[in-house]
Amino acid sequence: MSIEKEILQQIVPDETQRELVNKTVSRLIERVRNEASKIDLRLSVQLVGSVAKDTYIYPPDIDIFVMFPPEIPREEMERKGLEIGRKVLDGEEHYAEHPYVRGMVNGLKVDLVPCYNIKDTTHLKSAVDRTPFHTEYIKNNLKENQKNEVRLLKQFMKGIGVYGAEARVEGFSGYLTELLVIYYGDFKSVIEAASTEWHYGIELSLVDGRRGKFDSPLIFYDPVDLNRNVASALSVDRFALFIHASREYLREPRMEFFFPPPRQPLLLEEIEAMIERRGTSPLIVKMKKPDVIDDNLFPQIRKTLDGIGALLKKAGFEILDSAYHVNEKVFFIFELQSSALPPTDLHRGPPVWSEHSERFLSKWRSGPFGRPFIRKGRWMVLRRREFCSAKELLINRLEQASLGSEFRRLEDLKLEEGREVFTEENRKALSTLLDKRMGWEF
Amino acid sequence: MSIEKEILQQIVPDETQRELVNKTVSRLIERVRNEASKIDLRLSVQLVGSVAKDTYIYPPDIDIFVMFPPEIPREEMERKGLEIGRKVLDGEEHYAEHPYVRGMVNGLKVDLVPCYNIKDTTHLKSAVDRTPFHTEYIKNNLKENQKNEVRLLKQFMKGIGVYGAEARVEGFSGYLTELLVIYYGDFKSVIEAASTEWHYGIELSLVDGRRGKFDSPLIFYDPVDLNRNVASALSVDRFALFIHASREYLREPRMEFFFPPPRQPLLLEEIEAMIERRGTSPLIVKMKKPDVIDDNLFPQIRKTLDGIGALLKKAGFEILDSAYHVNEKVFFIFELQSSALPPTDLHRGPPVWSEHSERFLSKWRSGPFGRPFIRKGRWMVLRRREFCSAKELLINRLEQASLGSEFRRLEDLKLEEGREVFTEENRKALSTLLDKRMGWEF
Repeated sequence: MSIEKEILQQIVPDETQRELVNKTVSRLIERVRNEASKIDLRLSVQLVGSVAKDTYIYPPDIDIFVMFPPEIPREEMERKGLEIGRKVLDGEEHYAEHPYVRGMVNGLKVDLVPCYNIKDTTHLKSAVDRTPFHTEYIKNNLKENQKNEVRLLKQFMKGIGVYGAEARVEGFSGYLTELLVIYYGDFKSVIEAASTEWHYGIELSLVDGRRGKFDSPLIFYDPVDLNRNVASALSVDRFALFIHASREYLREPRMEFFFPPPRQPLLLEEIEAMIERRGTSPLIVKMKKPDVIDDNLFPQIRKTLDGIGALLKKAGFEILDSAYHVNEKVFFIFELQSSALPPTDLHRGPPVWSEHSERFLSKWRSGPFGRPFIRKGRWMVLRRREFCSAKELLINRLEQASLGSEFRRLEDLKLEEGREVFTEENRKALSTLLDKRMGWEF
Repeated sequence: MSIEKEILQQIVPDETQRELVNKTVSRLIERVRNEASKIDLRLSVQLVGSVAKDTYIYPPDIDIFVMFPPEIPREEMERKGLEIGRKVLDGEEHYAEHPYVRGMVNGLKVDLVPCYNIKDTTHLKSAVDRTPFHTEYIKNNLKENQKNEVRLLKQFMKGIGVYGAEARVEGFSGYLTELLVIYYGDFKSVIEAASTEWHYGIELSLVDGRRGKFDSPLIFYDPVDLNRNVASALSVDRFALFIHASREYLREPRMEFFFPPPRQPLLLEEIEAMIERRGTSPLIVKMKKPDVIDDNLFPQIRKTLDGIGALLKKAGFEILDSAYHVNEKVFFIFELQSSALPPTDLHRGPPVWSEHSERFLSKWRSGPFGRPFIRKGRWMVLRRREFCSAKELLINRLEQASLGSEFRRLEDLKLEEGREVFTEENRKALSTLLDKRMGWEF
């Protein structure tokens, strides 16, 4: 039996699961319709998402949209949407572009989302208004025998860590996997295309017509709104990883691509030995994890990692690798070529003919490391490096770096460098940096 | 008395000097005419250069051109030119674009150069054919009272080290100084313009009409040939130095700009202390001085300095400054931030989607410093640095650097690094690197 058949046996919902999902959905729809009709007779209720499209892997999220006539003001729509949600679900309220209610019913996660019932996507009033069109498009265009191909592709992407358009992952959305299967035909054809044809900026579309311009690794024009790139949330590294994993899988298909074994962090001794062998300098910046939702947190973490990196680089430190790790703290980990730099630095000044020349000369004319000199028409001078130690630099300048807003307070800041990073608390963070094995590699 | 008047008293030739020059010139012309007429009655003889233009500083070079009809073949022109030269001057033969004879008469250097007598510069047959037109242009356009302004400008440029279009200097030619004085009016106006108006790529012209395109710091369209930039030999550093010196002179005029005191090389102890203070690493590459003329030697020295620099830089060494020095050896001197680098290096591979991806992976998949990883869509891997010592690098790779042809044999190569450079032999070379004082600075 092929690996893909084996995987399908595990991920296609069985009869019991389907029954539970269907029963849950029909009861929910009934209750939502009931509550909606009490509030406004013009409201309609619709099942959207992977359950509606029958492309889910158990357990699915159940997405129910309450559709309001466009003439109802936004504020009223949001208020009434929440009201219905609260009555049906004993859930918590969430805020994406606008509020919705999330709850658990029969062990299944349910999202109850208000949106506008628009004629077509040129009349968008909120971002979620597109979702019913997506559901409709897939129901009309995805063939019966392609549904399990979507499931395979989703599980493959989950296994290699590129599934999900949320900020934590920056990967492929469910809708994008469905479009890819429609476009290429089946799971195998998608990964074959990725292996051989995909490159940065590749453009795919299921329909002709006007198209926006996007600078993205993958551009899939949304068939229900050609001005939108369905893959806009996909980062270049997830895109690249999907290409690489597709090639590796085609070379040697293995279950582990779909279900990678759980990763064990390296032992502290392994970590020490590895860094020792490389002769590099580890540096860890730790702060308290801000209390914000993941879609806010992860962009800020990446911004902060880049900002600290830019500060280090500008001061002359060579960054070989970096990573972040999150638990109750956020860890920013850097592997530096060296955490200590020589005391002298070459400072490039303005061109000799420039108006800034005089200021440069009056500042540096009697520098301690010799006079300014001319190279390729520019003033140059040797100067004392302000910070020869990376830790010193961060102690004095971290707050001037470009940090995510939630990290600007430097709450519970801790800086560790060199051998002092080798602690149990840092083990997982250092593992993230050092252990580049993917789940399917040994 | 102003400094400029004082300088003029020293540099304008006095009556005795003028008489000697004039007598020498008229006798020479007579003898050359006599010899030329024996060979071919169509030849004409002409005094060109700074003596003809009366812009020389004593002692001048005397340039006499023997002008051949254009129908005479090149080979014949060169042979007959040398024959006349040998008879008149007991001199050595020189080879620029074509051969000429140089000798000493009454203690004055005399060049006897054959060229073609062309109607205008569109009929150029050799590079020197333009010279009689230059002489003619200056004689017709430089006013009597501007001749000493040219002398001041020449002496100023000599003093600050930017006078001469030859490869050793890469500075301003005599003809260029004359054109600048015609253009701006007098010495003071030239340096005022340089101080305030000059910038990289500035274009000057005394005539209207068609113009070539040049990428040079200074473009002065040759009034006798608008396709030529008179300042084409000027390097950006000499250009910049002239601007800087002009500003400094205007700020505080001093004799030393024209007649800088002789430079004393630093003492070895000073050199050591300076390098010590900076914490940098000196590196000297020495080779035998090739036996070629300066116009060939200096471009090769610069090419070699750049080539060694590029090799060091590519291997990760940060060059703070470099210089060369010539005596019976050629010294290439580098001041490195550090002559030792950490053992590990970040190696950037191809984009993951590229066709080179597979080769990269098969080479690095099991590297000693961990697996390849993806950053911004590219493969990266940590690798062992090939050479952690600059000297080791040069011992093993110098012959692969882009060196001047005469340096490729690495004749009498000697490499010195760190404290071993502090020898009497290297003192002048290290002084050139470290002592950035100009003659007018204290």
